[in-house]
Amino acid sequence: MDFELRILGSSSATPSANRHHTAQVLTIGNQYHLLDCGEGTQMQLMQYKIKYQRICNVYISHLHGDHYFGLAGLLSTMHLKGRQLPLHLYGPPGLADILSLQLKYSGTNLCYKLVFHELDTTVHKKIFEDKTVSVYTIPMEHRIPCCGFLIREKQKPRPLIKEKLPSFLTPPQLVRLKWGEDIRDEQGNVVLHNKDVTMEPKRSRSYAYCADSRYKPALLPYLRHVDLLYHEATFTDELRERADYTFHSTAKQAAELAAAAEVRQLLIGHFSVRYKDLTPLLEEAREVFSKTELAIEGSIFCIRE
Amino acid sequence: MDFELRILGSSSATPSANRHHTAQVLTIGNQYHLLDCGEGTQMQLMQYKIKYQRICNVYISHLHGDHYFGLAGLLSTMHLKGRQLPLHLYGPPGLADILSLQLKYSGTNLCYKLVFHELDTTVHKKIFEDKTVSVYTIPMEHRIPCCGFLIREKQKPRPLIKEKLPSFLTPPQLVRLKWGEDIRDEQGNVVLHNKDVTMEPKRSRSYAYCADSRYKPALLPYLRHVDLLYHEATFTDELRERADYTFHSTAKQAAELAAAAEVRQLLIGHFSVRYKDLTPLLEEAREVFSKTELAIEGSIFCIRE
Repeated sequence: MDFELRILGSSSATPSANRHHTAQVLTIGNQYHLLDCGEGTQMQLMQYKIKYQRICNVYISHLHGDHYFGLAGLLSTMHLKGRQLPLHLYGPPGLADILSLQLKYSGTNLCYKLVFHELDTTVHKKIFEDKTVSVYTIPMEHRIPCCGFLIREKQKPRPLIKEKLPSFLTPPQLVRLKWGEDIRDEQGNVVLHNKDVTMEPKRSRSYAYCADSRYKPALLPYLRHVDLLYHEATFTDELRERADYTFHSTAKQAAELAAAAEVRQLLIGHFSVRYKDLTPLLEEAREVFSKTELAIEGSIFCIRE
Repeated sequence: MDFELRILGSSSATPSANRHHTAQVLTIGNQYHLLDCGEGTQMQLMQYKIKYQRICNVYISHLHGDHYFGLAGLLSTMHLKGRQLPLHLYGPPGLADILSLQLKYSGTNLCYKLVFHELDTTVHKKIFEDKTVSVYTIPMEHRIPCCGFLIREKQKPRPLIKEKLPSFLTPPQLVRLKWGEDIRDEQGNVVLHNKDVTMEPKRSRSYAYCADSRYKPALLPYLRHVDLLYHEATFTDELRERADYTFHSTAKQAAELAAAAEVRQLLIGHFSVRYKDLTPLLEEAREVFSKTELAIEGSIFCIRE
């Protein structure tokens, strides 16, 4: 099953002609999760031929415009194109008020169900789960209420080694073996050790999305060992004071978090428009954490099982 | 003095990867007037290297998202880039509420003065004037309150024919001649006929912007003899019923209005995304009114004096 991230925008607060505001699509199987939705996201989705009606959940980190000003337009287009599936929207307090007002004045009565889930951005909490993944908030440290998101595949079943399976096993016992249990007799004695007839399950993949935040080492417990970590890196470390003052991070700080959390790969993004060339940001991060990439428009990051 | 229109977007409700939502910049001398501001307008302004801080007035025709979802982002970028000049915003009821809510939740206190002018979209009324131009609303017929805008240069002074001017004229008399008056003696008798010592003034140019509207012949008095008329043309005439039902116009209807109003040039825009090739729309309009052009992204229309 795919677990693939597509970057739609890499720019911080002010965009440029060729750098878009933050938005990312995480594809898990045939479901699309949209992380933030800066201005122009619907056009970026079209640009990359992403079937936007497949988006099931939208997560908005905070209410700075560069992270959500594309949302009302996307919701409208979904409506005009006859969407039927419900859409679940996770965002901070205020987002529902703003969207409701926009819909009211445009005289729009959405043809699909928009389910709003108001987030407490100050806590780490499960906000969604289905049979495949769980999604959690990660509290950020920004000028206004802001949270990141951790998307984690659920534990996967242990593959059975068919040639080693005794013939007496019933279907419910096979299910229990898949989920790691031993088989016991009526007295509770183990008659079949799980590890003798099953293999290790496939890895449960994870993605952590951290935008926007001042450098916050307290994030570490949430990020530990994730496969892919996106962390904003608005500035190079030369502007560390400015980063701190504006509640943003430097490329070096993002890399320090990645190294401390022992993640598999780091993506940096949300670049200040002052950096025409992003090489200094990438080099700075790679000095601390070599497995760093730039989260630029159109790039795709696949996490394998 | 320049009187020049730049098109930033040509798409109706749903955009495509290369067709943007409605926005136009009218340059009059060194002042920029922005007409509508669909999603992505700020990036289009950057794309065409238009100095957006020179925009003095923004006019929003109505509160369908494809005409204003780029406004909050543009206002934010003006703020982040340290704008100092006031910005005047003309729009229908509701716009101020929406923007205020967005600014509140983003914790933004604009560093420049934003002056909101709420419009009565049902009347033809002067809403702005300076020493150069007057701007009027034009009531449209759409699903929600909507008006177009007529921008008209003020009457220009009559150039004096220096070699014909008698030496007895005082400075105030020269000013009166420039504005068309004859010179009279104390008894009221004409001692100098204006037309003997002045020339015809340069033309006062005009632009009428009509988006969005069902075909509405009652617009004619407002559009008569304008230099440049923009009129939406969402559909070809084959879909006239659909145009009527959705309160839009066809290319043929736009051309019929242009012909009846005897305008100099017609621009059509706001094209439905179903038209990958716009030739049928252009040909249909030109059959009725030959001086028609497509208002597509990046095109410039200059009105000469």
